[in-house]
Amino acid sequence: MSHLKDVPLNKAYLLLNHGPSTIVTCEHQGTANVMAAAWVMPLDFDPPKLMLVLDRNTWSRHLVEGSGAFVIQLPTRQQAELTLAVGSSNGGEGNKFEQLDIGVSRAKQVDAPVVDGCVAYLECKVISEPHNQEKYDLFIAEVVAAYADERAFSNGRWHFPSDELRTIHYQAGGAFFATGEAFQVSRG
Amino acid sequence: MSHLKDVPLNKAYLLLNHGPSTIVTCEHQGTANVMAAAWVMPLDFDPPKLMLVLDRNTWSRHLVEGSGAFVIQLPTRQQAELTLAVGSSNGGEGNKFEQLDIGVSRAKQVDAPVVDGCVAYLECKVISEPHNQEKYDLFIAEVVAAYADERAFSNGRWHFPSDELRTIHYQAGGAFFATGEAFQVSRG
Repeated sequence: MSHLKDVPLNKAYLLLNHGPSTIVTCEHQGTANVMAAAWVMPLDFDPPKLMLVLDRNTWSRHLVEGSGAFVIQLPTRQQAELTLAVGSSNGGEGNKFEQLDIGVSRAKQVDAPVVDGCVAYLECKVISEPHNQEKYDLFIAEVVAAYADERAFSNGRWHFPSDELRTIHYQAGGAFFATGEAFQVSRG
Repeated sequence: MSHLKDVPLNKAYLLLNHGPSTIVTCEHQGTANVMAAAWVMPLDFDPPKLMLVLDRNTWSRHLVEGSGAFVIQLPTRQQAELTLAVGSSNGGEGNKFEQLDIGVSRAKQVDAPVVDGCVAYLECKVISEPHNQEKYDLFIAEVVAAYADERAFSNGRWHFPSDELRTIHYQAGGAFFATGEAFQVSRG
């Protein structure tokens, strides 16, 4: 049974506001790819936009430039090994989904696979900005669909029910942090 | 005694790679300001660049456009209340440093104050990109100096010695996460 529930688009930024690491999927003319991306963040609230840094030497860059679309998904602590594996493999034209035995479904609003078992998904359409793409490897995109695992995200807040479902934050060299203790601060 | 140690510029992205929330300070023609910013992330490794989303309705935006410089600092869990306070005050021309009794020192490479007690500092010079600034409130900057509290960051890794010194990740409405448990994943 799926625990995924739609997130209103004007709340989509809340999925990324705490700075988690992500997995990016994309597809162009029948060829799909998957990679890790730590450099993703919100850019605007409504309509929601986000930014992705996508190195020019990756196969995903080629696919995203072709299709104008990608999906950002938030892996869980359980998926940290997978996140590192898709990140460190350059992929080329090899099929990382098969090589790593990654279960996938189809995205709803864009033509791409999504990785099963993540706690949030943001489907994105690229807003063409050739200068940013060429000079900075920077892609700006509009979020056209968002959904999350209701066990971990509902009513605009993350509330991780178990360590396994926590989102993750990449350092380097295979070292991660889990998203930690939640706490509330008052406005003084 | 200060625990701050310089971070080599080619390692500066590691201060931000895990997606912490930040405080931004800036100064122009003798007027300084301070605000919170969750939307900050690395853009490049060496020379290091980062991006900051800076709403056009903030006083800091006016100052940064004037000076072409700002400082990103990483507050600790102990400073979460301060982070919320500087974020939620629109400031105007009032002096938030005095109103909130914020201890400051001077930045090293840019002309701005820095908030005492943070665990990392990235001093930045804006790379002028008028289209991004006007259309997206997006500022791209080069990091010209970086330093961190050696108790929490050394040899390119965060290793928080206590909960009080952990970095923080903002959700919304005064809700934060602390940076959580560190774990290591192997490359399969």
